[in-house]
Amino acid sequence: MDYKVVGTSVPRLDAVAKVTGRAKYADDYLERDMLIGKVLRSPYGHANIKSIDTSEAKALEGVEAVITSKDLPQIKFATAGHPWSLEPGHRDVEDRLIITDKVRFWGEPVAAVVAVDEITAERALKLIKVEYEVLPVVIDQSDAIKEGAPIIHSERPDNIISSFGNGVGDIEKELGQADLVFSNEFITSTVQHCHIENHSAYAYVEPDGRMTIVTSTQIPHIVRRIVGQALGMPWGQIKVIKPYIGGGFGNKQDVVIEPLTAAMSLSVDGRPVRYALTREEVFIDTRVRHAMKFNFNTAVSKDGKLLGIDIKNLVNNGAYASHGHSVTMSAGSKFRPLYDFKAIKYSPKTIYTNIPAAGAMRGYGVPQMFFALESHLDDIAKSLNMDPVGFRMKNLIKQDYVDPSSKNVVRSFGLPECIKKGKELINWDEKRKLYGHDTGNIRRGVGMACFSYFSGTYPVALEAAGARIVMNQDGSVQLQIGATEIGQGSDTAFAQMTAEVLGIPINMVHVISVQDTDVTPFDTGAYASRQTFVTGAAVKKAAVEVKNKVLEFAARKTGLEPEELNIVDCKIVEPRRGAVVCSLEDIAMESYYDRMYSCPITSDTSVNMRNNAIAYGVTFAEVEVDVPTGKIEVKEIYNVHDSGTIINPMLAEGQVHGGVSMALGYALSEQMLFDEKTGKTLNNNLLDYKLQTIMDTPAIGSAFVEVPDGAGSFGQKSLGENTTISPAPAIRNAVLHATGVAFNRLPMNPQRVFEKFKEEGLI
Amino acid sequence: MDYKVVGTSVPRLDAVAKVTGRAKYADDYLERDMLIGKVLRSPYGHANIKSIDTSEAKALEGVEAVITSKDLPQIKFATAGHPWSLEPGHRDVEDRLIITDKVRFWGEPVAAVVAVDEITAERALKLIKVEYEVLPVVIDQSDAIKEGAPIIHSERPDNIISSFGNGVGDIEKELGQADLVFSNEFITSTVQHCHIENHSAYAYVEPDGRMTIVTSTQIPHIVRRIVGQALGMPWGQIKVIKPYIGGGFGNKQDVVIEPLTAAMSLSVDGRPVRYALTREEVFIDTRVRHAMKFNFNTAVSKDGKLLGIDIKNLVNNGAYASHGHSVTMSAGSKFRPLYDFKAIKYSPKTIYTNIPAAGAMRGYGVPQMFFALESHLDDIAKSLNMDPVGFRMKNLIKQDYVDPSSKNVVRSFGLPECIKKGKELINWDEKRKLYGHDTGNIRRGVGMACFSYFSGTYPVALEAAGARIVMNQDGSVQLQIGATEIGQGSDTAFAQMTAEVLGIPINMVHVISVQDTDVTPFDTGAYASRQTFVTGAAVKKAAVEVKNKVLEFAARKTGLEPEELNIVDCKIVEPRRGAVVCSLEDIAMESYYDRMYSCPITSDTSVNMRNNAIAYGVTFAEVEVDVPTGKIEVKEIYNVHDSGTIINPMLAEGQVHGGVSMALGYALSEQMLFDEKTGKTLNNNLLDYKLQTIMDTPAIGSAFVEVPDGAGSFGQKSLGENTTISPAPAIRNAVLHATGVAFNRLPMNPQRVFEKFKEEGLI
Repeated sequence: MDYKVVGTSVPRLDAVAKVTGRAKYADDYLERDMLIGKVLRSPYGHANIKSIDTSEAKALEGVEAVITSKDLPQIKFATAGHPWSLEPGHRDVEDRLIITDKVRFWGEPVAAVVAVDEITAERALKLIKVEYEVLPVVIDQSDAIKEGAPIIHSERPDNIISSFGNGVGDIEKELGQADLVFSNEFITSTVQHCHIENHSAYAYVEPDGRMTIVTSTQIPHIVRRIVGQALGMPWGQIKVIKPYIGGGFGNKQDVVIEPLTAAMSLSVDGRPVRYALTREEVFIDTRVRHAMKFNFNTAVSKDGKLLGIDIKNLVNNGAYASHGHSVTMSAGSKFRPLYDFKAIKYSPKTIYTNIPAAGAMRGYGVPQMFFALESHLDDIAKSLNMDPVGFRMKNLIKQDYVDPSSKNVVRSFGLPECIKKGKELINWDEKRKLYGHDTGNIRRGVGMACFSYFSGTYPVALEAAGARIVMNQDGSVQLQIGATEIGQGSDTAFAQMTAEVLGIPINMVHVISVQDTDVTPFDTGAYASRQTFVTGAAVKKAAVEVKNKVLEFAARKTGLEPEELNIVDCKIVEPRRGAVVCSLEDIAMESYYDRMYSCPITSDTSVNMRNNAIAYGVTFAEVEVDVPTGKIEVKEIYNVHDSGTIINPMLAEGQVHGGVSMALGYALSEQMLFDEKTGKTLNNNLLDYKLQTIMDTPAIGSAFVEVPDGAGSFGQKSLGENTTISPAPAIRNAVLHATGVAFNRLPMNPQRVFEKFKEEGLI
Repeated sequence: MDYKVVGTSVPRLDAVAKVTGRAKYADDYLERDMLIGKVLRSPYGHANIKSIDTSEAKALEGVEAVITSKDLPQIKFATAGHPWSLEPGHRDVEDRLIITDKVRFWGEPVAAVVAVDEITAERALKLIKVEYEVLPVVIDQSDAIKEGAPIIHSERPDNIISSFGNGVGDIEKELGQADLVFSNEFITSTVQHCHIENHSAYAYVEPDGRMTIVTSTQIPHIVRRIVGQALGMPWGQIKVIKPYIGGGFGNKQDVVIEPLTAAMSLSVDGRPVRYALTREEVFIDTRVRHAMKFNFNTAVSKDGKLLGIDIKNLVNNGAYASHGHSVTMSAGSKFRPLYDFKAIKYSPKTIYTNIPAAGAMRGYGVPQMFFALESHLDDIAKSLNMDPVGFRMKNLIKQDYVDPSSKNVVRSFGLPECIKKGKELINWDEKRKLYGHDTGNIRRGVGMACFSYFSGTYPVALEAAGARIVMNQDGSVQLQIGATEIGQGSDTAFAQMTAEVLGIPINMVHVISVQDTDVTPFDTGAYASRQTFVTGAAVKKAAVEVKNKVLEFAARKTGLEPEELNIVDCKIVEPRRGAVVCSLEDIAMESYYDRMYSCPITSDTSVNMRNNAIAYGVTFAEVEVDVPTGKIEVKEIYNVHDSGTIINPMLAEGQVHGGVSMALGYALSEQMLFDEKTGKTLNNNLLDYKLQTIMDTPAIGSAFVEVPDGAGSFGQKSLGENTTISPAPAIRNAVLHATGVAFNRLPMNPQRVFEKFKEEGLI
């Protein structure tokens, strides 16, 4: 397609607002006489609460309310940011109270204070007396399912949230008949999103009794629903406003602080109360990425054909279910349309432990799976003495592949081209030969890893999105979408789509970036890399509807049929004659002010996307390993993506930079550490938690193979999460190439690398 | 019709918000680092500006900008709050600059200051040096059209804005042939709206270059357009937000302060600037009611049949055109479908003078006309020795009358019934006999007056209105309308209409009371008593669309046709069987979450109302006149209205109370006084301007004759302005009855009454 605005590197619409500090985040919204909410956190990782005495706290001047579980509705609710399901069996696990009546992780809130200021609130917390019955703690998922392990939720005495799995083909047959069977174990760590903006919200009750919540969320419409459920209020009584967001990465695809914020406001007769987490609180009381332990048994023919794979996965879900088994199932699903296995069996267990609850995080279980799978494949290739690229190429599925489980169709398959491009970028063939034979302290290697990912959640969950367009008198438009800009640039992409359809420049599309659930079209939110694909369809539909209305006005004016007209560069044209009929502004003005036909042009549409598009990509990385210190330095790294049509190359590159940076931390340094006895989080701050900084980050290369996908409104597929999936295994495989040592556990930080090298006799 | 919610006295939706002080008005909105704008006002009523030196003011610390006319676009614009017309000949007079380059009234702004606070701004104003060439002033409209009068606008050297009039029939013939011709002159005064909330606005420029204006206005969409015109900006670059409004009465149906507020913000690089008028400024620099001088020549048959009326009207429009001749034409149009004249000739002149500009005010010229006409009719009845009621009854038009000029049809005509009801309420027949013969100091009398009024402006101007409804998961809805709640209660009326159509209780309709031109459906605004009638049609249309969508969902679920279903009390019912099919909530939930059919239910509609409905009413008043002091006390007063179906009796009664109270001031005490030499307003404050207080206000009686009108979506017609039309002449006629003295000039304040009584020999 020959697009004019789609496919160009339009700067972010919010660029100026953000760099000048004028973009308003949740903390920048003010209400008169805002009160401050704070919570008291448990000093134990697992405990029964025997009693709480709040009397002294309540008596402190400036304290407006002190609340404990007893003061709140005893309605258990689920916090995962999924669209509601009409089928009860398809809903998330409801295992949470607004404030708990039993402590399940270290730092869990046991009481809350609302006070006139932060200092008073902090002082009041110290006056609350809690009597605990301390219980034994379990932090490892394997331990949690052992006989006699502490029971975290009485409803699930085996600590297993779910062990539902899936499979295709006959895995026993493949494993039994195969020339070779490779077995291995892979372990990933608990990490955190570390979005720049902490969770922050405030709530108040309107005089008509309706609750308003302003919050930093990816999912305003879901927040509305879950707050309603948690408080036992009709959902329509709740209004959620989403301002600019300083990153979420899935941690704001969960309803973490809003029910408590709303409850705080209700405890003071609906006065405005702000509840904002500190960084230290975010680490322990929001969500983390699931740590997983994979066990692979893989059937391979001696000529290197993958036949079957049997995957066991023990998933550490922490203290509450949150997205729990959805993430586990995503890990077991999204890798399928990549390699042509005859049989796949996936047997996971999602397990409660006494660590912070695991939830959604960029990639949604898939980075864990691909770290394991792509590491495993490199080990197999090495055993078979095959080039890792050649081995994978041999086993790729083909275009038009239908995923047997989801029935999703591979309509576009640019992965082979991505691999080709990646090889060229890193100079693969030469470096594979050159490196891999070092014996000194400094050793170099190159590695790669592939991935597949979906665009949205279809057919697992509802994929509804809405868009509304209002045309102004000058032909410019407002675009209202329920989908949320959370830093990823979606507003800009949607504006490009709108401008493209309407034949207007981008600066004539005014995106309403603040979502207000009262009036913003319904959309399930920013997650699952769904927005460009799913919401993009709604945006196109809304824009086409507006275009058609414009052309109908123009047709009435000209006596032509709408089909004979088009909008090009803000003009109504008759393409047959190459003639300009009138300006778009003329039509817009008539739509408002024509005495006979006045009907201002708007569209208020929604789509129910019953389709998916599989996106692909590959990472090629070159590392330099300092053997004596265990330090791995990434010298070059390239992500090459098949995400269909790229709506905005500059923003797409930005996604790659962010996603790869996040993956570098995942690969090399990040992990949350917990005390085994108490469950205490040991490094819940940005000093001790080793997030990658710009100093740790190499130049990140990106490239795109643009095969338009028939299911995308402009041929687009997902990109956002995709970028963070394959770097970790590519780095791991480069280290394998450099040193011959196979790391099967993340992160590959110097301590662990050093220990492993010692174990392997390198030092 | 048998309505459940329409027609009931639902309390105002904003009642609690307003009485608890939580309703947010323009002044309650805050921006960080808001600057303050103030203007320097001319001490002369008419002057050329020879020079302005702003250097000292600019040098004052804390002054961010000083602007004069020279710093601003030299684009003349019109301020009247009318929808734009595509026909140039139908547009308002463009005679205004944002800051003038010539002074035309006392107190006109000649420069503006933007400073960090009010005190600094006030100090800066004193440092601006202006050199004036003082010109002679003319404040009276008759003087302004005399030879040699000062020329106020060079474009119109005769000071006449327009002398366009109209007529039906052959007035010369009727006057020539009639048995009797009655002639008289009537004069009304300049008065002010005195809405509680002064004009207040603030503006800032978004980082993307778009202007946002938060303002106390009746007409947000029109503010947007006019600010765009005044500043030469594309209209789509401007966003106007209308919060709660503390009254407007037409004074906020004019774009008074917004262009300057926007210009102030532009002068400081788009930083937020608040410009709020004091009460003293509102009196001189917003709008006033047109003072009019009527000259009547009326042909009457000796048996009391009205045959023809020849009306001349000299209208004092003040220094700028504003609504100017529209008000004049309204005065000459809306009385027509009342009495069955064979011929009417209306010859007005709308005239510039050096007083504050006259604009829209409740009744829009019609209270002036009816004061004159109904006084005149009482004089005629008296001359003919006929009962004023009988005389009018004899001359009323009949139902199905077609106004020859507007072609508006009288579809419902409850006036005879109103008159009957009013007579009973005041005990007319008995009191007419009992009073009117007093000779002492205290004399009593009863009087009455009728009126006719339109519902909106059709066919004069565009009547477009929009409504959008969003249904929530619980079956409750948000209603978004471009029409503005300005205190009159329209939000509540619209909520009732929505609830009525959707079969839900009123508390399930959440009206979005704040208009935001970016997303709020287009509506021309609150004026011309149009909203219940015009916007009410849009609201019904939107609600019916939502209802139909609900029933389509329910039909799919049940296998029935939508026509076989209905919504009653939040349930989907099958009326034939008297059976409940499911709850409305069930359908609402499915509309969101059905995996196959998800399509959240909304409607985004507009109407172009090409119709009008004529409303009627009558006032009956009893007065007690203290002859020696000239004090008139209204003892009883009843307004009886034919406004079709009354949507909310309590709110309707409130409209009557407010409108009659305003009319009492108009009749008895209010007038703005100007110095003849300088044009200075002498009483621009609420101490010296004699607004009626609650102590001056008698119990006001109201009654309604509900004849549903076929053109109203629920049979409703206008009411808001109607209430203020007929009290003044009714009181005047009661005074005539009590004393035999005919007052032909307003107000009838003690000074004037005393003088007249002396002149007539009563004292």
